Formats: sequence, structure tokens, C-alpha cells
Amino acid sequence: MRAFQLVGWRHPPELREVPVPEPGPGQVLVKVAGAGACHSDLHIMEAPGPPPGLVTELPFTLGHENAGWVERLGAGVTGFTPGDPVIVYGSWGCGVCANCRQGRENYCQNLGGQGPGLGGGHDGGMAEYLLVPAPRYLIPLGTLDPRRAAPLSDAGLTSYHAVKRSLHLLGPGSTAVVIGAGGLGQMTIQILRALTTATTVVAVDTDTGKLKTAKHMGADEALLSGDETITRIKDLTGQVGAELVLDMVGIDPTLRMAAQVARVLGHLTIVGLGGGALPVDFSSPPHECSVASPYWGTLPELMEVITLAQQEKIRMLVEHFPLERAAEAYQLLHDGKIQGRAVITPHA
Amino acid sequence: MRAFQLVGWRHPPELREVPVPEPGPGQVLVKVAGAGACHSDLHIMEAPGPPPGLVTELPFTLGHENAGWVERLGAGVTGFTPGDPVIVYGSWGCGVCANCRQGRENYCQNLGGQGPGLGGGHDGGMAEYLLVPAPRYLIPLGTLDPRRAAPLSDAGLTSYHAVKRSLHLLGPGSTAVVIGAGGLGQMTIQILRALTTATTVVAVDTDTGKLKTAKHMGADEALLSGDETITRIKDLTGQVGAELVLDMVGIDPTLRMAAQVARVLGHLTIVGLGGGALPVDFSSPPHECSVASPYWGTLPELMEVITLAQQEKIRMLVEHFPLERAAEAYQLLHDGKIQGRAVITPHA
Amino acid sequence: MRAFQLVGWRHPPELREVPVPEPGPGQVLVKVAGAGACHSDLHIMEAPGPPPGLVTELPFTLGHENAGWVERLGAGVTGFTPGDPVIVYGSWGCGVCANCRQGRENYCQNLGGQGPGLGGGHDGGMAEYLLVPAPRYLIPLGTLDPRRAAPLSDAGLTSYHAVKRSLHLLGPGSTAVVIGAGGLGQMTIQILRALTTATTVVAVDTDTGKLKTAKHMGADEALLSGDETITRIKDLTGQVGAELVLDMVGIDPTLRMAAQVARVLGHLTIVGLGGGALPVDFSSPPHECSVASPYWGTLPELMEVITLAQQEKIRMLVEHFPLERAAEAYQLLHDGKIQGRAVITPHA
Amino acid sequence: MRAFQLVGWRHPPELREVPVPEPGPGQVLVKVAGAGACHSDLHIMEAPGPPPGLVTELPFTLGHENAGWVERLGAGVTGFTPGDPVIVYGSWGCGVCANCRQGRENYCQNLGGQGPGLGGGHDGGMAEYLLVPAPRYLIPLGTLDPRRAAPLSDAGLTSYHAVKRSLHLLGPGSTAVVIGAGGLGQMTIQILRALTTATTVVAVDTDTGKLKTAKHMGADEALLSGDETITRIKDLTGQVGAELVLDMVGIDPTLRMAAQVARVLGHLTIVGLGGGALPVDFSSPPHECSVASPYWGTLPELMEVITLAQQEKIRMLVEHFPLERAAEAYQLLHDGKIQGRAVITPHA
Repeated sequence: MRAFQLVGWRHPPELREVPVPEPGPGQVLVKVAGAGACHSDLHIMEAPGPPPGLVTELPFTLGHENAGWVERLGAGVTGFTPGDPVIVYGSWGCGVCANCRQGRENYCQNLGGQGPGLGGGHDGGMAEYLLVPAPRYLIPLGTLDPRRAAPLSDAGLTSYHAVKRSLHLLGPGSTAVVIGAGGLGQMTIQILRALTTATTVVAVDTDTGKLKTAKHMGADEALLSGDETITRIKDLTGQVGAELVLDMVGIDPTLRMAAQVARVLGHLTIVGLGGGALPVDFSSPPHECSVASPYWGTLPELMEVITLAQQEKIRMLVEHFPLERAAEAYQLLHDGKIQGRAVITPHA
Repeated sequence: MRAFQLVGWRHPPELREVPVPEPGPGQVLVKVAGAGACHSDLHIMEAPGPPPGLVTELPFTLGHENAGWVERLGAGVTGFTPGDPVIVYGSWGCGVCANCRQGRENYCQNLGGQGPGLGGGHDGGMAEYLLVPAPRYLIPLGTLDPRRAAPLSDAGLTSYHAVKRSLHLLGPGSTAVVIGAGGLGQMTIQILRALTTATTVVAVDTDTGKLKTAKHMGADEALLSGDETITRIKDLTGQVGAELVLDMVGIDPTLRMAAQVARVLGHLTIVGLGGGALPVDFSSPPHECSVASPYWGTLPELMEVITLAQQEKIRMLVEHFPLERAAEAYQLLHDGKIQGRAVITPHA
Repeated sequence: MRAFQLVGWRHPPELREVPVPEPGPGQVLVKVAGAGACHSDLHIMEAPGPPPGLVTELPFTLGHENAGWVERLGAGVTGFTPGDPVIVYGSWGCGVCANCRQGRENYCQNLGGQGPGLGGGHDGGMAEYLLVPAPRYLIPLGTLDPRRAAPLSDAGLTSYHAVKRSLHLLGPGSTAVVIGAGGLGQMTIQILRALTTATTVVAVDTDTGKLKTAKHMGADEALLSGDETITRIKDLTGQVGAELVLDMVGIDPTLRMAAQVARVLGHLTIVGLGGGALPVDFSSPPHECSVASPYWGTLPELMEVITLAQQEKIRMLVEHFPLERAAEAYQLLHDGKIQGRAVITPHA
Repeated sequence: MRAFQLVGWRHPPELREVPVPEPGPGQVLVKVAGAGACHSDLHIMEAPGPPPGLVTELPFTLGHENAGWVERLGAGVTGFTPGDPVIVYGSWGCGVCANCRQGRENYCQNLGGQGPGLGGGHDGGMAEYLLVPAPRYLIPLGTLDPRRAAPLSDAGLTSYHAVKRSLHLLGPGSTAVVIGAGGLGQMTIQILRALTTATTVVAVDTDTGKLKTAKHMGADEALLSGDETITRIKDLTGQVGAELVLDMVGIDPTLRMAAQVARVLGHLTIVGLGGGALPVDFSSPPHECSVASPYWGTLPELMEVITLAQQEKIRMLVEHFPLERAAEAYQLLHDGKIQGRAVITPHA
């Protein structure tokens, strides 16, 4: 089969011919419908060498955001039938540590709290077939089209997980600020809207087009990032600040803004991989504001994301590319020219 | 009456003669038994001008950590009788915002999330009498001696509040690290010990004497701060890190250590006013470790602290000074020569 | 002034002339705009003698669900100005027990967990003026009309409190069943709708008119109570049962239904005063389903209810009666002829 | 191999010769060290026919409370080595529903919320070997002797799970009442003691010997059940009632007592299988006291129980019987002559 693989550091990935994997006992072979191209792949592709804890050895197939159809069951696997449309949970853990046993494999204790995972240490989904090590990583999609659903397994799940840690703060009169209204930001706004109508959702961006989309996705306020943004948010919250600030960008200026608009006892959540750092001291961010940088999401949460998608409460804009155009898709992503998510469709 | 007052910035406080305050409607006059001298007072005393949000105008009487006996009730006050021993909650809020209504006056929304409070904007307890604006700030001490109990209202409450935010993490097999085994650190160790036997409590300090005390207070491990401390803690936790790290020092090196020994989904709590800052980015501290700097504690928590003290589960080492030696007490505190807490006893 | 008072057991209340109360220190006099007539008043009015823990002595003015305008402040009261529109929290506690200090005066520990409260042991609001013992019981209404807002202080708050205990269960794919779509049921449906869009809200009633209103209020499903109701709900929930069942009726048959449609780890909440009892044993309701009967709500929750009303997310249908028609209003309530809530308006 | 099997309803179980099972892909064969004899087995053994949802078909091997050594791994199983001492989690679910994915297989949604489980629908551990369907059900015992550890998988886990739902209530000044100080009651007292020192633990029983043991296990108060028990508990709690009441008996009189000593906002947890029922209405138990009957425990909780046992914070008194004396062990259990737990040791 064809697979889009990283074969060397600082070397463009290549479309190569590799054997179709054979599912061993307890494993499942999935025929890939869609594999999303994610910004974090660019980080790996541009790295000078193996990013610590993320990638083990070369070559490997890219693609950690996948959906498809069950192709073949390994010995002992039950509960699925070939042809079933499924989404693939991508953060594969040991399965037996305290976190894995609660479905929080994104925080597997035996993999250092963040595993190499699929599409990093393991062969990912930018290929005709994907070998999944256990059926627990497969969630039935029902009537959802796996070619469109693939991004829910990372873009959807990461956003959902980031929101869920703060849900108890989002009662009547509360405010949630989403800094950065790109793909993940738009998903986050939809999720906030789907989970609570009582919260005022504020989107902040430097791009008026994205702000327009944010409004369309359900944001109550859309603010162009600038000198007055902080004052505007303070005014909207009676000078108290927002219960939740989600920084989907993660550069120093956005983190500084986040610290100034969050409130005492609020949450400041760093999702964006912009490379910035937020200095936390006794008086900034406000007292007992919980600052944290979550990673991906849990298995039960992916079930909930699929439910939201089935109820048509969230949807991801996707642009499809055949496998032979994978390199081009990443180039467009790199150049900021993808709206929503680029999804590789090996069996288009 | 005599009162130990701050009369000018960068000017030593003075013992002055001032009128005994008269309790108005809804107020209570307390005869001061003990008023603790706290490091945060030194910050105010050494400030070049009014610290933003902390102090309004001069002169004012120092002392935000007080206990005493009810002396006189203002019109309309019920529920107390002159002579009742009481501890005084010191973080006075507006009483009607959403936080104050839940007893979280330390986070009053109308005072910017951290009010000037007693001993800052209001006259404090380093005087013969203290005017308390509402009876809700008084908690009966029962058989506890108010001269000994005074530090529970800040040193005790601040430690308790810092621990309580993380109590749900401290199940069987968990680890709590307390960096800094001075007065607050020792109180924190006792509180951890009183609330859960299932947690391994690790004390870290640069002083072997304090570590010895920490062991005596209930720490399971006492580690001299050094090159191997991080490795030792990692080994103690199966390389996963501690569920809770409390930094009672708050300088850059202790914060760096804290970030390295905390675990994914853990808590890193900054209590010490050392002036350091912890940079938080996508990968440090570990993912979804909640970093926060709490401030003081709540009214219901002070009730719980008093209960622990009545059950003899916590106690504060105190050194008593008459009012005329208040300046000396602060000097000793400044020089690191106070064991536990210096408490001014205006009525010896 | 005129006051509608209970003067004897099993004796119709009377409109009497009484002195306007004078606010003492710390008290506030409120000019009554609206006082709701509640089913629980009928229980008191029809009782053969003082209901244990609810009423102390006669005569007293009825009306525990009030809003109005600040008329006069007692000595020492600040933060309000005569003319301010306010709603009156009605469950007056001691103010100093652990529950009261958290704003949960509905569960005052010094009043046996459920105080006589306003309109029971204290004179209520069915009079021209109402004496409120502390300003903490007053919440500003802003632009809301106090004649319409009055029912929010009981009908609104009771519904909100009942929902809030279970909010963490109401994620994507969850189901909330409201048995009884009368006044409180309709308010509950609106509150569910305002707090989460991710839950399927199912209304059950014996009256098709009420079910139609329930749909209008936001219920996703409206089921006529009957033999197939349980099967229908089971089918809607994939045979697992509902996360939350709120019984707004509280008679044996509705409680039996509730136990059969609730799920493992769900909540079954008894709000209705129908006089039934639900037998709980090892296997029914389903395992670890939490059965509880809440009472009224907390002060911070009333602030949240007011916020929801200001955002026009909830509204109560009210029918206004002047004070001289109070007896008639209760008669109509008794006869089931009030749509929404009967509100007495002494200053109409 | 020999297996102690139920072969007919209302018919004594028999020791029979059956084939040693062969582990298929993903399965594990365990050599049984200890299999506890539980009261719930007596219910099954004395049933006139298959208890609904518990047992499917005959014959089957009894024993749902097991520990042993890994004997042989099925294809694809990793992470264990033959000879490893392990405890066997016994509540086997589907593995893919929302509850199973969080390790709450005791509440598997595809098995009706309470599966037949091991020793019910599946062959249990009263045999030389036990076939375990997945390695996730095995938890390493480390240095614990599996012959002694076996009861931790049910008696230990059930007690732990029952306590854990209420742990957030057990702060300073709180009270936990354990009604029934038999085997499970004693385990519960130890667990309460291991998790919080701040709670007053009250044991209630009709047997002075058991009360003496309860004191030895860490109960602060041991009350002989009688007319004054309720008054005593009320006095101990300042008339407010206990935060947590665990009824380990579950007959009508103990449930009635439980309802009277629980407090507003407390928890009343029914663990005992005594066959009683507690009527819940608007005013009894106290308002918003959460009444629930939990079932067994979760996989992550079993890990925590093992940690507590390794730390020597809990221990179960066990009496060992070889396989050929299994019938006798059950008879002694039936006659109330077992202290602690009877454990069958097939390889004694």
C-alpha cells in the first residue's frame, strides 16, 4: 500500500510503498477514510532530530487524526464488523496505569505523561490502512462520514478537553474568552456554545474574517486584537475578568493578554503551540487562577465529541486531498492557506 | 489606647496613643489578646509608598492576624457576649458580591480580588482594642487560648486554604511536596497530616534543623535541598512526580524545582512571597498541572482550622511580645530569628 | 398598613391593619411590589396547628416570595439607596453556621436544617411593607420589574437549585426528565435549557396543554403520562435511563416512574410536595443513583437566577392581584386555576 | 482440575473435575491462590432459580473474589510474566461503553448496570485455575501474599468505593457512622481511618465483641445499638447529624436509624444486603441528603485498595480452607461463625 512517511530529519516526507500491516491478536486493521494534517506534524517535520518523547525512530507514517472503516479483526477481537465506520483515538497508552484505566491515555504514566502516540512513534493514518493495537481505540461513527469526521479525533477532542476542565465555572453571567479564532478556536467556540448557553463567549483575533466566522459559530462578541481589547473584556465582565480564558495561539503577547483578562479563581488554559511562556507569580495572573496546558483528550471525551457531531452541534470545515497530494496539503497548511482542516483521503 | 501604627513610608512604625474605637451599628469591639507579626507586614513597612490595592492611607494600625475577647457589641449585634474568646477573620470584603456571599471574602469582587483588609487599609490588631465591622468575622474559640490562637487566622488559614484546593488529589499512593519548612511550611505539613494519612508528605529545605522539625510535624521524608532533590522525589513517585507541590518560598530556584517534581494533572501552588516567577508553557510544568497562587482563605475554612486546633491536630509555635516590644518582634522576624510566630499581646 | 395575615389554624387568613415596621440597626424596610402565592402556603393555611419547624406563633403575615423597592435603611446599613428595586431572599438563617457562611441559609444548622423563614415564622410580604433583617437578603434587580420578578425568589430559585446539583451529569448525550409540567416544571425546563444545550429534556405530564407549553419552553420531548412512558424514556436513552429525573409532583406513582427511568450513577430529585415516598433498597433505584429532596436554594444561586432572568433566558408567567384580592388568589391557586404564578401587588 | 461448582438451583454446590481452561488471544490463565467466600454467594446458592441479571446458566464455578499467580498468557498479551502475583478485578464489563472506558466496569451500560460477572455468569475462582478475559482485570500485588489479598477484590473494594463517594464531606469536625461492625464494617472503618484523620468515626453494632474490634480498627466511638443510639449520635454532632452514614446491614431498623442520624446535605449509603428499604420523602432523610446503594467498585479504586494494603493501612482477617472444604466454609459463613473472611486456597 502507499504511505506518506517521514524518512529523515529536515527532509520532506515521501509517499512510499509499504506492506499492508497484518492485525495480530487483539489488534484491528482500519481502512483509512480520512487523515487530518495538523500543525503539530509540521513541528515534527521541521525538527532537526527526534523531538524528545514524541518520535522514536524513522521511517514512520504521518497522521494522528484518523477515521475509516474496520477492515480486519485480529484474533480475539469482538464487537466490530468489517465495514463499520469508526474514528480512531490517537493517544495510545499502556492501558494499565491509573490514568489509562480511566480512559485518560493522553496522560499515560508509563509514557512520561505524553506518549509518542500514533503518527509519532507508531505508523499513522496517512496510508491506505492503519493498524490499531486495540479495539478500545475505535469509536463507532454511526451515520457520520469518516472522511469528514477525522478531525474530530484531534482538533475536536483537544478543544473539547480544554473546555471541559472548566465547565463548572461557566454558569449564568460567566464569560469565556477564546484568543485565536482559527480552526481550533472555531471548534472551541462551537463546543462552548453546545455545552452552555449561559456563558458569554468572546472571540479575539487579529483577522476580521476569522472574527466574522467566530460570530457565525456562536461567539457573542468578536473583538479585533488591539490596545483596547483588555479594557473591552474588563468592561464586559464588570471589571472582574473572565472565568475562562483559552489561549489557542500561545505566543507571549496573547499569554500576557490572557493573564490580564482572567479573573480570580478562574482558569487560564494554554492550548496553542506558539512557543510563548506565561510567567506566574504571586499576583499575576489573578489569585488562584488555575494556569494549565492540557494535551489532547480522553477516550470518554471522544465519545462525547462524536455525540455532539451526531447532534450537528459541532462541525469542522474540511478540505480533502488524495494521498498523492499530501505534501501539497502540508505546504498549504504551512502557508496558512487551509480553511478549517486539510484531510487526506487515501481511498477518495 | 496604645496602637502600633505605620505613620509614613520607609519610616519605622510607632507606638501611639489613639482613642478606643466605638462600635457603631452592626460592629463589634474586640479586646486584643494576640496579634501575629507576619512577613507580609514587612513588605508593607519597607515599601516606598502604598502597595497597589493593599493600603489606602496613613496612619493605620498594623496587625491582620488577631484573636481576643468580645468587648462591646454595636447596636443590632446578637450572638455574642462580652468576654467570649474569638478569632478574627481578617480579609474583609463587601459582603454582597458572589464570592463574599459564599464566605470567600478573600476574593471579594468589589475589592479587586484582594482587599486592603484589616491591618492594611483598616486599623489592625496591634493595639489594645480592634474594631470589627461585622460579627460574621468573629469565630468562637471555645477553650482555645486567643493569645496562642491568633496565628491561626493567617498562618493557619493560608496554609489550610492552599492544601484544601488539592485535597481531592491526595488519595492512596499520592505524594505532597512542601518546599520550605519554616513557619507556614510546618503548619502546612501538620494540616496535610491531619487531613489525609494516605499521602506521602515530603518536606524540602536548606536547613537541617527545620527538616528535623518537619519530620516531627509528620513529614514522611525530609530532603535537604540540593542537586539530587529532584531525582529523589522522582524516585519516590515512580518517576511520575508529585500530585501536589506547595512552594512556600516562591523564589525562582524553588519554583523551577516545583515544576520539575510536579506531575501531569497535578497541582503546583505558589504560597511563598519570594518574588520569583514560574514560566508556564506548553510542556512545563507537566501537562494540565494546575499552577495557581492562592491568597489567604475563606470564612468557612477558618472554622475548620479552629476545629483542627481544638482537636489538637495542629498547633503553632508562638513567641509572645508585649505591645511595647512590637518593633523588636518585627526586627527579629526580619532577621529570621523567630521560631514559629511572633505574637504581640497588648494585654499580656 | 394592610397585611394579609394568618390569625388562627384552620381559619381563613385576614387582611388586617398593622403598624409599618421600623427598621432597626442592620435592617432594611422594603416596599413590597409583588408577593407570590405558593402552594406551600396552602399547606400552612390548611394545617390543624403549627407545622413542626415551619411556623412559630400567630398571627403572622403570609408571603415568602417577594420583591420590591428599598424604602428605608436601618442604622449601619450601606450599599442600597431608597428606591432600588430588589428581590428578597426568603430563607433566613442564623448567618454564622458553616452553611449560612457559604450562603446556604436554606440549610441553616441552627434552625434544624430548614428554618421557619419569612412568611412562616417571620412576617412575610403580603403587606405594604416588609421588614428584612439584613441587607445580605436583598439582591438588586437592575432593570427587572419587581412585580414580575417576585416568583424568582422561590419558584425560580427552587427549580434552579434542584437542577444545579446535577449539572455535572448533563453532558452530551445525556437526558433530563421533568415529571410534572406545571409552574415549577416549566421553570425547570427553561433552566435546563438555559444551562445546557447538550441534554435532551423530556417533559412528562397528564395534561396535554401543559405538555404543549413544555415544548414551547424548550423540552425536546413531551410525553403524556401513561403505560408506555417508561418504555419511551428507556428507548430514548438506549435502555440506560436518564442521568437526571426531577419529580415535581412527588406522589407515589410519579416516584415509582422516576425510579424506573433513572440510571445507574444518575440523580433522582424529589421537588414536588405530593406526599409520596420512594422506597430505596439495594437494587432500586439503579445502583448509586443519588436520591435526594432539596429545599429552596442558596443566596449565590438567587444571584444567578436573577442573571438568567435579566438575560431573558427564563421568565415566569404571572397573574397580578391587589392585596384585597389575596384570599381570592389563594382560592384560585387551590382550585388549580392559576397559570404560572399568582402575585399579590400591594402597591399595584 | 477441581472446581467448586453450582450445578442446580437449591442444590448444594459440588467439587467437580473439569478441564483446565486454555487462554485464547488476549486472555490470561491465573493459578488461584485464594478465593473468598462471600455472603452474596449464599444468596445465589439459596436462590430458587437464576437471580435476574446475575447468573445466566449452570453449571458454573463459584468465587468472584480472587487472587493468584499468572500462569499462562494468551496470544497478544503483554505486561505480565508467569508467576506474577496478581489480584483479579471481578466485575467484568463490555470494555467499551462510557462507564467501562473510565474503569467503572461495575456499572457497565451494556450489562444493565450490574453484570453477571465472574463467579456468577462466568466461571469463578473456586478452582485450581481461573480464566481471565483480559489483562486489564489483573493488578500486580507486589509483595502482598495473594492468599491473604484475595478479599481485597470485593470486601476491600466494595468498602472503599462506598467511602470514596463521600470523601469530600469528611473534613474537620465531620462524623462518619458505620452501622454494622462485621467484616465489611471493619474494613470500612479501617479505610475511613486511612483516608482521613479529621473525621470522627462512629461504629454501631448489637455485638459488644465486634464493637471492641471496631475500636481496635480505629473507630473513635463504638455504640451498642439501642434506644439511645440516635440521641448519642445527635449529641456527638451538635444535633446536626452525621455527614456520612454507611449502613452495612441494610434491614429496615438500621435504615430507619440511618435516616435519623444523617444530616442535611449528607450522604446515606446502603451497602448491606439485608433486604430492607428506606422510604425517602420530602422531609426524611434530611433535605438533600443523598441516598444511594453503590455496587462493588472500579478498577482504579482497586489499585488504590492494593496501595493501602501494601502500606499496611488496611488488612483483612482471613481463615483459609482447602478446596475440598469449600462447602464447609460456606456453612460456617452461613452460621455466622467466620471471623473476617473465609478464603479457599486450591493450592494451599
